[in-house]
Amino acid sequence: MNIAVAQSGGPTCAINASLVGVFREALKTPEIDAVFGSINGIEGIINDELMDLKLVIKTNEDMELLRQTPSTVLGSCRYKLPPVEEGGKTYEKILNCFEKHRIEAFFYIGGNDSMDTVAKLSDYLAGVNSKIRVIGIPKTIDNDLPVTDHTPGFGSAAKYVAATVQEIIRDSSVYSIESVTIVEIMGRHAGWLTASTCVLRANDEIAPHLIYLPESEFSAEKFLEDVRIQQAKYKAVIVAVSEGVKLAGEKSKPVMVDNFGHEYLSGIGKTLEQLVKDNIGCKVRSIELNVMQRCSSHICSKTDIDEAEQIGSEGVKAALRGVTGQMMCYKRISDIPYVITIDGIDAHKTANKEKFFPKEWINQQQNDVSPEAVKYFLPLIQGDVKIRMKNGMPVHFKLK
Amino acid sequence: MNIAVAQSGGPTCAINASLVGVFREALKTPEIDAVFGSINGIEGIINDELMDLKLVIKTNEDMELLRQTPSTVLGSCRYKLPPVEEGGKTYEKILNCFEKHRIEAFFYIGGNDSMDTVAKLSDYLAGVNSKIRVIGIPKTIDNDLPVTDHTPGFGSAAKYVAATVQEIIRDSSVYSIESVTIVEIMGRHAGWLTASTCVLRANDEIAPHLIYLPESEFSAEKFLEDVRIQQAKYKAVIVAVSEGVKLAGEKSKPVMVDNFGHEYLSGIGKTLEQLVKDNIGCKVRSIELNVMQRCSSHICSKTDIDEAEQIGSEGVKAALRGVTGQMMCYKRISDIPYVITIDGIDAHKTANKEKFFPKEWINQQQNDVSPEAVKYFLPLIQGDVKIRMKNGMPVHFKLK
Repeated sequence: MNIAVAQSGGPTCAINASLVGVFREALKTPEIDAVFGSINGIEGIINDELMDLKLVIKTNEDMELLRQTPSTVLGSCRYKLPPVEEGGKTYEKILNCFEKHRIEAFFYIGGNDSMDTVAKLSDYLAGVNSKIRVIGIPKTIDNDLPVTDHTPGFGSAAKYVAATVQEIIRDSSVYSIESVTIVEIMGRHAGWLTASTCVLRANDEIAPHLIYLPESEFSAEKFLEDVRIQQAKYKAVIVAVSEGVKLAGEKSKPVMVDNFGHEYLSGIGKTLEQLVKDNIGCKVRSIELNVMQRCSSHICSKTDIDEAEQIGSEGVKAALRGVTGQMMCYKRISDIPYVITIDGIDAHKTANKEKFFPKEWINQQQNDVSPEAVKYFLPLIQGDVKIRMKNGMPVHFKLK
Repeated sequence: MNIAVAQSGGPTCAINASLVGVFREALKTPEIDAVFGSINGIEGIINDELMDLKLVIKTNEDMELLRQTPSTVLGSCRYKLPPVEEGGKTYEKILNCFEKHRIEAFFYIGGNDSMDTVAKLSDYLAGVNSKIRVIGIPKTIDNDLPVTDHTPGFGSAAKYVAATVQEIIRDSSVYSIESVTIVEIMGRHAGWLTASTCVLRANDEIAPHLIYLPESEFSAEKFLEDVRIQQAKYKAVIVAVSEGVKLAGEKSKPVMVDNFGHEYLSGIGKTLEQLVKDNIGCKVRSIELNVMQRCSSHICSKTDIDEAEQIGSEGVKAALRGVTGQMMCYKRISDIPYVITIDGIDAHKTANKEKFFPKEWINQQQNDVSPEAVKYFLPLIQGDVKIRMKNGMPVHFKLK
């Protein structure tokens, strides 16, 4: 039998490690012949754009480099499959591609949109009595997939954010004047990554002094009051805020207009910066961690990368047992020592759904998170991958 | 005799390493008793706010941690000394502080403003027949100090920028649609740090496809033409642009107005993003590397940190030889093998002056740099410091 694997959604540091997990497990499995990589997610299957991965990932060294390369080596897509009952032609193309290449199992590495693909495709295949198995391998720096304890890619993003915010804390503390530094962190609906900055407390940092999530109640007035309270105690106040935090009422649309008259949507960081400038008047700066949050493999979490490979490998084992229509997920057995197991759950349970940061872990003032959160996050950022360097820079795996 | 050391100007990854250089050399020198740290640059001397460093940097482990801690452990300032002939009272305060604490040599780690302090203070001391020596230790991520081959702090900034731009290249290449990614890099007048992204070519990256420096000629029309030419060859075009690049004519003031009617100065990255959006219409994104460029010690250059310590140490040796009014500087003997020597030059030659990126290293199209630049930059980013970690995060040295 042959198998195929594809990657979908936004980049992370761990998607390629999951690909290596699928690939390495296939190499160890005598029943599996070719491993096809589908170019740009499910689109590669629909358009029959496949690549024989054994021809491009040739050595153990290649696999090690691929593990430390961020983003998706096979490309990605944001393609959503039509409903099974309406999308006959699309599904036939997929089935044709699978049959043409004798693909008996398909592994889709992605977020909640990709799990929608896993659910629909496995429903379709069951409907046509096909034995082809479809398995979802989760990934997202947002950590917002239901059921799984956490998601591959999140730990590395959290480690980058923690190290960077710590460096910003040092940077902001040099001058003798009062200042406010606002760090805008990814997360449109779920605040996991912003909340994870609390891990700095395990290393005796007091900052970030204020942490705001999309899940917390938020208003401009309360924010300014919070900042003033922190300024009474700390010269350089550090604020961590999720991009998805919204101001209540009138100010909820912080539209900027440039000199050509174009509207321009400023982020929450810039909006809060302006609020501090107008109402407090001290030195203030906002910093967007931007795409670096999802692709900074040079400081990835070894735990995250190892687990991402392992969950890919477990996906292959599940498919060989005949499992289909499931997303693999982590189950945490204990925090200390940190132990997880990997199992599958029905992909319908995660498709298009989001898991939010628990309200019980947000403090009463809605501006910080509790010590339980530190305990949850800390194991996920542990360990350093020995990055292979050349000419003083990390080496990335490239297809050609 | 006692000595004093202070840090000034914006943060870098290497200022604390130079402090360790001064401190360690002092420990090895029997003539030197106390090493005082001045809080917030020269202000600490003026206000007699000193700290006995032997009481806070106690072990070799402390020194190692301080070397890997970004920013300035003693704080910083932007204080400019008055002209010698007008600033009697200020200079007397400084002399009083030196005499009160039996300080016979003062080391000032900073950029071109700080070398102004070194020049003026040594002039003043010579004028009152004092034997107290004043030595400048350079630092700046801008690499814009005259005479010295390069500046401590620059190599680490360049290494961070190279690793990050490489990760952004991977991140931007996942989708099948056309895109332009604009990375705005620090450098108001000198383009060294932006130019240094060319080192990626040593690792077979083609991107950044376009590199714009404050020293290059630049116009909106030419920029759009450049982007279109690259788009004919590459799906994901990467642009590296110095914050100091200005649009010619009318568009030179990209002032944004927010919904409260406030003017808001957008950076060149956002301005170019808007230009692409309006004129080309493809997916476009701008990324500001912000303060992370100057404080990302977690990926500092070993060459930079080692040299920064060494130049601090050489400063102490020079002072003991009776040298004063000089800035220590690097002289490059050869690129391969990379060899430098350290010597002093008259601080008046660097005070308030800037060294620009050589026009001969900018291509005719004014949108790229030459292979000579790669040869110049490459040695400066070599080697990795083994960063001490705790709980999955780098450990920083703190004064208390």
